[in-house]
Amino acid sequence: MRTAVLVEPTEFELQDRGRPTPGPEDVLVAIRDVGICGSDVHYYEHGRIGDYVVEEPLVLGHESAGEVVEVGENVTGLEPGDRVALEPGVPCRRCAHCKRGEYHLCESVEFMATPPHDGAFAEYVSWPADFAYELPGTVSTVEGALCEPLSVGIHAARRGNVGTGDTVLVTGAGPIGLLAAEAARAAGATDVLITDIVPEKLEFARERGVDRAINIAETDLETAVDEYTDGVGADVVVEASGAEASIRSTLDGVRRGGTVVLVGLSDEAAVPLDVLDVIDNEIDVHGSFRYANTYPAAIDLLADDVVDVEGLVDFRSPLSDVDDAFERAMEPTVIKGMISVDDA
Amino acid sequence: MRTAVLVEPTEFELQDRGRPTPGPEDVLVAIRDVGICGSDVHYYEHGRIGDYVVEEPLVLGHESAGEVVEVGENVTGLEPGDRVALEPGVPCRRCAHCKRGEYHLCESVEFMATPPHDGAFAEYVSWPADFAYELPGTVSTVEGALCEPLSVGIHAARRGNVGTGDTVLVTGAGPIGLLAAEAARAAGATDVLITDIVPEKLEFARERGVDRAINIAETDLETAVDEYTDGVGADVVVEASGAEASIRSTLDGVRRGGTVVLVGLSDEAAVPLDVLDVIDNEIDVHGSFRYANTYPAAIDLLADDVVDVEGLVDFRSPLSDVDDAFERAMEPTVIKGMISVDDA
Amino acid sequence: MRTAVLVEPTEFELQDRGRPTPGPEDVLVAIRDVGICGSDVHYYEHGRIGDYVVEEPLVLGHESAGEVVEVGENVTGLEPGDRVALEPGVPCRRCAHCKRGEYHLCESVEFMATPPHDGAFAEYVSWPADFAYELPGTVSTVEGALCEPLSVGIHAARRGNVGTGDTVLVTGAGPIGLLAAEAARAAGATDVLITDIVPEKLEFARERGVDRAINIAETDLETAVDEYTDGVGADVVVEASGAEASIRSTLDGVRRGGTVVLVGLSDEAAVPLDVLDVIDNEIDVHGSFRYANTYPAAIDLLADDVVDVEGLVDFRSPLSDVDDAFERAMEPTVIKGMISVDDA
Amino acid sequence: MRTAVLVEPTEFELQDRGRPTPGPEDVLVAIRDVGICGSDVHYYEHGRIGDYVVEEPLVLGHESAGEVVEVGENVTGLEPGDRVALEPGVPCRRCAHCKRGEYHLCESVEFMATPPHDGAFAEYVSWPADFAYELPGTVSTVEGALCEPLSVGIHAARRGNVGTGDTVLVTGAGPIGLLAAEAARAAGATDVLITDIVPEKLEFARERGVDRAINIAETDLETAVDEYTDGVGADVVVEASGAEASIRSTLDGVRRGGTVVLVGLSDEAAVPLDVLDVIDNEIDVHGSFRYANTYPAAIDLLADDVVDVEGLVDFRSPLSDVDDAFERAMEPTVIKGMISVDDA
Repeated sequence: MRTAVLVEPTEFELQDRGRPTPGPEDVLVAIRDVGICGSDVHYYEHGRIGDYVVEEPLVLGHESAGEVVEVGENVTGLEPGDRVALEPGVPCRRCAHCKRGEYHLCESVEFMATPPHDGAFAEYVSWPADFAYELPGTVSTVEGALCEPLSVGIHAARRGNVGTGDTVLVTGAGPIGLLAAEAARAAGATDVLITDIVPEKLEFARERGVDRAINIAETDLETAVDEYTDGVGADVVVEASGAEASIRSTLDGVRRGGTVVLVGLSDEAAVPLDVLDVIDNEIDVHGSFRYANTYPAAIDLLADDVVDVEGLVDFRSPLSDVDDAFERAMEPTVIKGMISVDDA
Repeated sequence: MRTAVLVEPTEFELQDRGRPTPGPEDVLVAIRDVGICGSDVHYYEHGRIGDYVVEEPLVLGHESAGEVVEVGENVTGLEPGDRVALEPGVPCRRCAHCKRGEYHLCESVEFMATPPHDGAFAEYVSWPADFAYELPGTVSTVEGALCEPLSVGIHAARRGNVGTGDTVLVTGAGPIGLLAAEAARAAGATDVLITDIVPEKLEFARERGVDRAINIAETDLETAVDEYTDGVGADVVVEASGAEASIRSTLDGVRRGGTVVLVGLSDEAAVPLDVLDVIDNEIDVHGSFRYANTYPAAIDLLADDVVDVEGLVDFRSPLSDVDDAFERAMEPTVIKGMISVDDA
Repeated sequence: MRTAVLVEPTEFELQDRGRPTPGPEDVLVAIRDVGICGSDVHYYEHGRIGDYVVEEPLVLGHESAGEVVEVGENVTGLEPGDRVALEPGVPCRRCAHCKRGEYHLCESVEFMATPPHDGAFAEYVSWPADFAYELPGTVSTVEGALCEPLSVGIHAARRGNVGTGDTVLVTGAGPIGLLAAEAARAAGATDVLITDIVPEKLEFARERGVDRAINIAETDLETAVDEYTDGVGADVVVEASGAEASIRSTLDGVRRGGTVVLVGLSDEAAVPLDVLDVIDNEIDVHGSFRYANTYPAAIDLLADDVVDVEGLVDFRSPLSDVDDAFERAMEPTVIKGMISVDDA
Repeated sequence: MRTAVLVEPTEFELQDRGRPTPGPEDVLVAIRDVGICGSDVHYYEHGRIGDYVVEEPLVLGHESAGEVVEVGENVTGLEPGDRVALEPGVPCRRCAHCKRGEYHLCESVEFMATPPHDGAFAEYVSWPADFAYELPGTVSTVEGALCEPLSVGIHAARRGNVGTGDTVLVTGAGPIGLLAAEAARAAGATDVLITDIVPEKLEFARERGVDRAINIAETDLETAVDEYTDGVGADVVVEASGAEASIRSTLDGVRRGGTVVLVGLSDEAAVPLDVLDVIDNEIDVHGSFRYANTYPAAIDLLADDVVDVEGLVDFRSPLSDVDDAFERAMEPTVIKGMISVDDA
């Protein structure tokens, strides 16, 4: 099977690899669509993300969906022909985290496209059936692939305990910020504000329905939020930019007793936070790491057209054009690029 | 001021009463719209609801909104001309329930149109300013009045902990059932089923967007829910009919580990429940009584057009036609009647 | 290995069975102590519990602890010589319940001594290592075995959300009721009341430190609770008797806004509950089924001497005396009998 | 009545002031015991804490208890002769925070001994009856006064969601740290670790029952916690020192998915926090500000002898010796000094 392998930073090689054989609990999936994530681009450019170093050739891609072509002997509930979204992290199922239902915190999770685990830029992937979620007829495999970033947004909204009537401020209008904003809306938020410094992104966010898009290069965040909320602040702030200034400013945007959810990964080792503010205003600051138990909800939101992920896709390229696709994904105005494996 | 007073069962008298003087923390509100609730009709017909007996002439009406005409000396945040929805229950503010934020459980709550406390079928009501919620320009006083039944729905959804992607079954398609269904949707439910035995109500629910409207006079509930949910059951069941058979059937509709919210008041002293089912399937059965801290969310949902309460209104009558209005409100096909005081 | 097999109701046969071979993720445990549970006695007497029918010879016993004698090739963290308590239910690890951390609700759970799954009245049991919890030196295997009923109590306290300063009423002073009372105390309850109709059990409960032991054959429950709580009622009621009258009375004991946890299994198909009371007082009624994620906490409580489970043990019998032990366990004054396998 | 008034930094004046007259909802309390808190000492030394500046003469003291001598006309439930603990912060009862039950976040709270509100170093205080909690006969007024710092500990444990079997690390062994440790134990923690740099405090903590007292001047925190927890980390860390190094180190002590509660007020405007750690390990960082709804639980813990607050008291001085008492309270080995007003 054709597989796009990152052999060196910025160098893909299209290899012909053996088609995997599914184990008794697995399904073999013919991959259809795979999103290009910022982390894929980071590995492509730098060969590493923090402590994760690409030491062996690596298959990237962890936002994927496709069609089941074979099922393991113990698999029930899926059969060849079913279209599925693949949740990319498979936990040990046995540790305390797994037993408590927080399997995304399992120390032994095997996550696609995180060294040394291969991802989905390939014709076939064998995957545990319980992490392959059937897509209804109304949900495309492009949408199925984008259940992954949508899951990040859903999880962030859950970590913020977003509820009916809440005002939610999202800092950063990239794909995660946009989807977190829409997941917050889906969870009941009636007022959604977003920030960025790129006018095009803010305009795009406005078109997708945020109530206020704030250019923090021009406008003071606290002033803008206070104006919108009559001085109260947002119930929940979801930090999706990773920028240090933005992380610090979350405390200016959140109301007394509110919640800050940190999603965007910063390059800084440590960000100075106003601890007195956290205490005096009794803020909850919640890290949000990947997601767990989100795929069924993500698929439901897509089936109901509550969230439009396809509208985020700037281009779809065949597997054979993976190099070009990655170069294009690095352009600042691009929100989401896709590799469509079956068009290879 | 003109006031519609229930002097005997089925007998209103239009009295001219003195206009109340607001206390230092109160606002005087010129009432514009008041919904006719099933409890109003019950007092009108029977002169009592359970232990609450109308012994003195009583002013009915607790779903109300109007315009502030005077404010007490300590009131900030409201001024004459502001349009407000009135939350009808005012608690003692001092007991353990009030301090815990569950002020609707305060034993000393004074609730409009519950003997001996007068309601809002009158030209003016003086009310604590903190239970008068300003309406934005896009929310009418009809909508403001209907924040009350919508609050019942929002509270029920909260009591069921409805979240993104949930499947919610509502039993009973009267105003509370319909609004609970829409509150569940607003809280993230992507699949909403409703039951009733009146085809017109089911059709109406269908038009308002429920995913499946089940006529339980013709269809077995458990079969219908199992079919829709692949045998899993609903995450949350909101019982809004008060019918004994429906209360019992909630356990047939809910999934293992799910939640049943009881809202509809039954005439039966005791309803047999399958306790073994509750234990073996670890069901949460949650009573849901009125609401607390819902008005701001209700107004936000209406301002955002997430819920359409005006679509529930069958007719609006002037205060002078209150007798006719109550007779009409008793017709089985009527969902919601309104008294429009300013048209009196 | 010697194994006590229930071949007919009331008839055990000591068989010599092959010693099991642990799989790669399993440990082989030389069983030391096994508690005799009410469900074991019920199978012994009647050959069935509800829909669970003993159709093939069955090994009873699910409250067990012993010593690891062999470990599977993938097992880390346990080694021969370690003493362990065995959690008797092993779930599928793959369904939605398992992924959410509510693995006790897994429809495919294999539970010891529940047909057709054999239990622990045997010299050896092979068991998944992650459901075998190491006991510290200060915790005996008798205590290890009794982590099982203690887990039922811990889970009930969690399902009741018992917290610091709570008043908890437990109905039924059998082993589950006593351990639920002590788990509630451990979770912060400062006032614990218990009911029963057997004076000896109430006296025993008193000796173990409950604040008030109420003989409901002589005293009206509501009156007694009101007297103790100044008319407020208990924050949490844990129903541990399974008696219909007791189940109904939980609503008399609980405070407005409080929680009733149902643990005791009733023989009645349906118990009439005052649904109006549940709604008007906004009660939470929570089924509590077995437990999940409790064993580490149970062991901690035992290691800290917070709960004394050994004080519940009336007798310990060798495996060879299993018939006598079961006859004795049926005596009304006996709280807990143990089989000590190594004394066989 | 005699009143100790701070007229200048480090200068008390004993004034004779008029005895207050209780309002209709108030009780007049003859103060018996008042604890000297670190904030009192700070005002005494510096005349300010952050933005709170003593501009007019101020009565300090907010940890108080005494005897009711007069009750307002609307007061029920208290009468002259009752002994009460006074909760020092009285909220507006009308804002969104108050209605949600988080009245400690009320922006209009009037808090004893916080400018411009006088405290309790006086013979009499008039106070709202619902913030005066009756003490049972077994709880002294010294204990009653110390319900205040104990409330800080209880609230911190609640903010950390401490539960049965948890391992809790408290950083800082001053009065708040010690009481947070004991509140955590009361809430179910079975392993409690504490840090400090003063050997006497650590020894004192050890005597009061902590499982491990770590001198972080000599021992690396992460190493010590990993050793104790087999590399897992604490479920909850309560930061009670306010020291920047300690605040930063909380992330070294907490387990993946655990909670850090920040209680101790730092002098630093901003403390650098490892945001990547917060996200990757999905930590909850919760500010904890004063308390709400804790006094009944605090009194219950004291009545049950679950927590020993009197053991923290180093000395009791009469009101006339207030200057000496404050000087003594500043000695590093003193944990808690009391003013006993009736010995004046």
